Amino acid sequence: MTFEIHFTHEPIVVPPENRSSREVGASLEFQGIVREMENGQALKGLFYEAYEPMARRRLEYHLSELGREHPCLEMVFIHRLGWVPVGEASLFIRVLGKHRGEALKLLGELVDRLKLDVPIWKQVRETS
Amino acid sequence: MTFEIHFTHEPIVVPPENRSSREVGASLEFQGIVREMENGQALKGLFYEAYEPMARRRLEYHLSELGREHPCLEMVFIHRLGWVPVGEASLFIRVLGKHRGEALKLLGELVDRLKLDVPIWKQVRETS
Repeated sequence: MTFEIHFTHEPIVVPPENRSSREVGASLEFQGIVREMENGQALKGLFYEAYEPMARRRLEYHLSELGREHPCLEMVFIHRLGWVPVGEASLFIRVLGKHRGEALKLLGELVDRLKLDVPIWKQVRETS
Repeated sequence: MTFEIHFTHEPIVVPPENRSSREVGASLEFQGIVREMENGQALKGLFYEAYEPMARRRLEYHLSELGREHPCLEMVFIHRLGWVPVGEASLFIRVLGKHRGEALKLLGELVDRLKLDVPIWKQVRETS
């Protein structure tokens, strides 16, 4: 499985899908979007920070492991950092696989691990 | 949960995302794509047929049920019919939800039920 990991301080632009194989049977795209209400509080946005070198290493580790458990073909991961207003995406993940089952599992487990074990933090702030 | 169900004989065009709520925290898009190799045979494409009125009724039934089990906000379902060449999508599903968990479950279970209980058939043909 090939993968790309990007961090950006700009709004996430969904990259064009560049399928390298005629064996892709499932394309799955996920966007995690900042919601207005969190714990009963109306937000204007969230502020994301990462320790990028370690975040990248942890992601590479988890992607290698998950790629063996749920073999897929290609993956793109983009995390936005800095101020992200309500309604905009902080996270984009695309998984291309032969079958939907592996792609769904890889995506779900990757986001679970991202929250648990990758040094990216979000803070509630009143404004940017 | 609001949902749209479309059948088309043209290539699927991903519709613009028109989020009605600031509570959307997860956007999930799935495309099922015709693969070249199926059961060791190299295909040029697949031919899809549906009994549309019943397919729509079964999808409405399953979406209502799944929407209660895995509450989401909006869903778009598009199935292409007729000849679909290798590399093109026969199916597009978008799920918008508050959280990724429900969106992933709704999507996964919907595609499982689509294959089991919705009158849409695919045939292997040499050409269009």
